[in-house]
Amino acid sequence: MDPTVDPRAKSFVPVAADSHFPLQNLPYGVFSPRGHDTPRVGVRIGDMVLDLAVIQDDGLLDEAELPDGVFACPWLNPFMGLPVPQRRLVRDRLHRLLNVDEPALRDDRDLRARALRPLAACDLHMPVGVPDYTDFYSSREHATNVGIMFRGAENALMPNWLHLPVGYHGRASSLVVSGQPVIRPQGQTQPVEGAPPVFGPSRLLDFELEMGFFIGSGNPLGEPVPVGRSDEHIFGLVLVNDWSARDIQKWEYQPLGPFNAKNFATSVSPWVVTLEALAPFRCDAPGQDPAPLPYLTEPDRHTYDIRLEVHLQAAGELQARRICASNFRYLYWTMAQQLAHHTITGCNLNTGDLLASGTISGPDADSYGSLLELTWRGTKPLLTAEGAERRFLADGDSVTMAAWCQGDGYRVGFGEVTGTILPARPLPPPGR
Amino acid sequence: MDPTVDPRAKSFVPVAADSHFPLQNLPYGVFSPRGHDTPRVGVRIGDMVLDLAVIQDDGLLDEAELPDGVFACPWLNPFMGLPVPQRRLVRDRLHRLLNVDEPALRDDRDLRARALRPLAACDLHMPVGVPDYTDFYSSREHATNVGIMFRGAENALMPNWLHLPVGYHGRASSLVVSGQPVIRPQGQTQPVEGAPPVFGPSRLLDFELEMGFFIGSGNPLGEPVPVGRSDEHIFGLVLVNDWSARDIQKWEYQPLGPFNAKNFATSVSPWVVTLEALAPFRCDAPGQDPAPLPYLTEPDRHTYDIRLEVHLQAAGELQARRICASNFRYLYWTMAQQLAHHTITGCNLNTGDLLASGTISGPDADSYGSLLELTWRGTKPLLTAEGAERRFLADGDSVTMAAWCQGDGYRVGFGEVTGTILPARPLPPPGR
Repeated sequence: MDPTVDPRAKSFVPVAADSHFPLQNLPYGVFSPRGHDTPRVGVRIGDMVLDLAVIQDDGLLDEAELPDGVFACPWLNPFMGLPVPQRRLVRDRLHRLLNVDEPALRDDRDLRARALRPLAACDLHMPVGVPDYTDFYSSREHATNVGIMFRGAENALMPNWLHLPVGYHGRASSLVVSGQPVIRPQGQTQPVEGAPPVFGPSRLLDFELEMGFFIGSGNPLGEPVPVGRSDEHIFGLVLVNDWSARDIQKWEYQPLGPFNAKNFATSVSPWVVTLEALAPFRCDAPGQDPAPLPYLTEPDRHTYDIRLEVHLQAAGELQARRICASNFRYLYWTMAQQLAHHTITGCNLNTGDLLASGTISGPDADSYGSLLELTWRGTKPLLTAEGAERRFLADGDSVTMAAWCQGDGYRVGFGEVTGTILPARPLPPPGR
Repeated sequence: MDPTVDPRAKSFVPVAADSHFPLQNLPYGVFSPRGHDTPRVGVRIGDMVLDLAVIQDDGLLDEAELPDGVFACPWLNPFMGLPVPQRRLVRDRLHRLLNVDEPALRDDRDLRARALRPLAACDLHMPVGVPDYTDFYSSREHATNVGIMFRGAENALMPNWLHLPVGYHGRASSLVVSGQPVIRPQGQTQPVEGAPPVFGPSRLLDFELEMGFFIGSGNPLGEPVPVGRSDEHIFGLVLVNDWSARDIQKWEYQPLGPFNAKNFATSVSPWVVTLEALAPFRCDAPGQDPAPLPYLTEPDRHTYDIRLEVHLQAAGELQARRICASNFRYLYWTMAQQLAHHTITGCNLNTGDLLASGTISGPDADSYGSLLELTWRGTKPLLTAEGAERRFLADGDSVTMAAWCQGDGYRVGFGEVTGTILPARPLPPPGR
């Protein structure tokens, strides 16, 4: 067994039993100790953050022969692009350094003071500079639900859906890290079919429960990534909230897909959980009928058992209510298939590219990953913690998503991605 | 009159009467003198390239107070992001420096040797690092033609089309500069409706005649750009060939838009022509009925009179044939409207973002900007220079687009964007 996934291994840093961040996880993020303005790369352990720039400077990662300053950087990208064996060596070394039996950091009070920061005293930043962002539509349950609502049960799934992982290019510039508020977008909608469109704040603002993976090493233009070699290109995963303005989307999306409905913000969780940390939670992916074409046929089809939750804290309420429980394993199309399909034309992926799953809905009504589905297009309002009704999001509402893998007595998790809706802003003056 | 657009001004560098690159143009690009491997920013004049890194180093641009090394850079981005008045000062200084009456460069043989390179001895590179690429669909004639082919004449334009500039997010990573060959993409298609899809090289490979504009200074997330202030954010324009695999597109595009059909390559011309150079060619844009919503209503609606041509040199043939003549002014939605619509939700644009027009078709059958339209979905093959038939592109075919504004005795142009189709490549082994 890879020692970094030994479920019995413990850190000298205290880790609660239900923490998402035990020694088996060691996710990467970008942080700045509050009051300092130089973001750098860290690893989370329990409720502490290990400053990798300090650890590297002190020579504790020398055996990995890393480029200078790879962690003294406001993005994970330089590290993500390193060869897989080199990154694994870093993980192995960090695992040992934080182990309860290893004195090098444990017993060096000065080093601990410089290198280990309480999370509560840190600001977390967008962990990755994302050159291109792609969003798939890989949940059969979600695609079916949306299809039933818009086209009826007979034509719920488009003819192509069972043959390829449908996806589209998303907007990279408006990716934001968890915690950043989301301003209600304004735009064009057509409230009455056949009537002229109107302008104003979106009235049907929604979330979408997704996960996404970041590309470690990319592929050159013209060279597809075979479906069996995807793991060499996947660095790790985050939670993604693909905020969506349903009324804008409905009016604009024909024939080129969603644009303004989603380009105002997409939130991601701050800690990138590596494929290595997820390895113990590999599981079978759903069977596929019809069988996919050879370029999408996996020699070792698998996915990961990652539990997902969405919590809604309504404006003015004192607590949140869980409104969805789903699982990453429900997805019909796997990351390997998404990656192979994306590149089959020769499209090049770059280090830091984000490929998100699409809304992850499950089979049960409480496993639907969007308000569109949970309230069935607003026809079945859901109740907040204090009994208010919600069809879509109101100003002041907060949406928090969480994700974790349940091990035997420990968890490997993603923490949360959260965001609060701010009211639409007045438009600026029209200009000359 | 702005002295930089005086039509009588001449350079001491020889400029042919039909050259796209007289003193009135001065477009920016990124080049490397052949044999050197350090790309830097240059300006084209006639068939020479002025090395701006050298000009800056020699103190000839001191009055603009530019950041050090802004031109010793493989991208235009650092320069593009400077304030408009500072960029205008550079343009003014370069205009004077290259003027026939100005001795500073003209009479300094040593400086000329270091700063002016024959274009034929230079390699041209992708001029801009593009963070996000957006493609619109702003030609009424193109949208109508495609609509007639796919939905019939009654429903040609989607209901939203006359109310907003339909657009989608494109793939930034596979933007390439003119001259780079394009490998025929492979992918899924459904040759027989209702039958299972098949895999293989695209059989319906097409070009799309487009222009695009680059963002100079961007806008912060949450702050829309008013339609009347777009000029402050537009740096300049290039020609764009949005290569498209029609058979892949037809099968994949519902409901989220084109993905693999276009993500294998998009070609741009190497010289970015500034808004300042285009100013003499401002003209009225088409009238709009119905009137757009206020956020899309321009206080000073205008576009530019830019002539466009497409030339096809078929595989094995010794000359090209012009197969399309169109004009940028035909576009129904202007750059100002595209920019205002893109940001109305609060979406942030960054320096270097590319916003392309969509296929620019005109009213006449020989002004259609794609083979899809020129051959009417392959039903009316066109003839090559030597009389061969083409419905879509064959391996070895070269497509060259050109664009210029016709002044009184001079031209301000874009040069060309060209690309040759290479055969599809065998797939790599499937992996473990």
